[in-house]
Amino acid sequence: MEIALLGGTGDIGQGLALRWALDTDHSVVIGSRDADKAERKANEYHSSLKEIGVTLDIAGYSNETAADSAEVVVVSVPPEYAPQTVETVAPVLGEDDILVSPAVQMSRDASGFHYDPPEAGSVAEVVDRAAPDDVPVVSAFQNLAAGALSDLETDLEADVVVTGDDSEAKETVMALAEDIDGLRPLDGGPLANTGVVESVTPLLINLAMNNDGMHDLGVRFE
Amino acid sequence: MEIALLGGTGDIGQGLALRWALDTDHSVVIGSRDADKAERKANEYHSSLKEIGVTLDIAGYSNETAADSAEVVVVSVPPEYAPQTVETVAPVLGEDDILVSPAVQMSRDASGFHYDPPEAGSVAEVVDRAAPDDVPVVSAFQNLAAGALSDLETDLEADVVVTGDDSEAKETVMALAEDIDGLRPLDGGPLANTGVVESVTPLLINLAMNNDGMHDLGVRFE
Repeated sequence: MEIALLGGTGDIGQGLALRWALDTDHSVVIGSRDADKAERKANEYHSSLKEIGVTLDIAGYSNETAADSAEVVVVSVPPEYAPQTVETVAPVLGEDDILVSPAVQMSRDASGFHYDPPEAGSVAEVVDRAAPDDVPVVSAFQNLAAGALSDLETDLEADVVVTGDDSEAKETVMALAEDIDGLRPLDGGPLANTGVVESVTPLLINLAMNNDGMHDLGVRFE
Repeated sequence: MEIALLGGTGDIGQGLALRWALDTDHSVVIGSRDADKAERKANEYHSSLKEIGVTLDIAGYSNETAADSAEVVVVSVPPEYAPQTVETVAPVLGEDDILVSPAVQMSRDASGFHYDPPEAGSVAEVVDRAAPDDVPVVSAFQNLAAGALSDLETDLEADVVVTGDDSEAKETVMALAEDIDGLRPLDGGPLANTGVVESVTPLLINLAMNNDGMHDLGVRFE
């Protein structure tokens, strides 16, 4: 399967790109608003993998070109850029493609981080509104620590809650989560349930800030 | 230490009462709007403990009487009754007492459960507004499965995120959480951070509803 990481030059995009490249046979392409930046980053990821003895081609393109060739398109951009990013790639998406939303909108004040959901209820629902009607949207990967994901020497052990209204698309994304060593996909129900998943992310940051020895936290449900 | 569980006839109140009675030397009193009901429930808890070979007196009183004798007062009532419950017991509370808020306000629709925070930001902040100025409020125990807590044959293994603005009161409640076998207290920061803790509860219910074999879920951060 070909996976495009739009905004794949950022933290979570980098981590997912490296893990899918390392742990699976899926083909990974990096997208960015700036195709040159995407190419530079793709080369960096290639080098990171080479350092641990893995030779893999990772390509970098403009977001449109990256999305065009992929079946699964991860909108790993800052939440405020999610709608315009989806609109940019909409012309190259079809009903066999899946948009994945891993972003979270947060605010910060003196107390810590807070969940700051958009009016639609969640970033995933913003992505869904911006997406063509026939393209299913699935939310996943919000609660992973980018640092742990990108550090290929860190063993992961974390749950990935997946939400979506299209059960086939949701199953595909759950399988892609399971393909990464140490991640366990869980079904969070329909896309309308995404808010309570996204809001775990500011909690993870608050816990890391307030408890000695806790950092790069993930979450497990048991 | 004497702990009063206001609304201690409900699910989470029952679970905390039984665990503190079983695992610690703290004295537990049950409060209810209806003193007779509190006494009946206290007798039931006494019998539950006796079944597993533990003989302990648990008393049941009106909420006011229960709060009067206790140093830690847990407001384990449904969220809509939290403000009036706190107002009822306010005259018997002093600066050496601590109010603990474990309640979560949720809504439910065809998709599942959603976090439905009160205007104050969280139930804990509602409790704080209703509390006398000199009585510290701490939030904790929102993300425990009442079923697992009340079933004394279930080994717990769950994190308890504790928030509060009074560090001494927060430490006291973190210690009370740690006193229950299998619970690990974590510092979630100030009371203003409580919303992202409370919102984990509807997520736990959604996960139990959508994943075979998952029930009575707790959460671990690692």
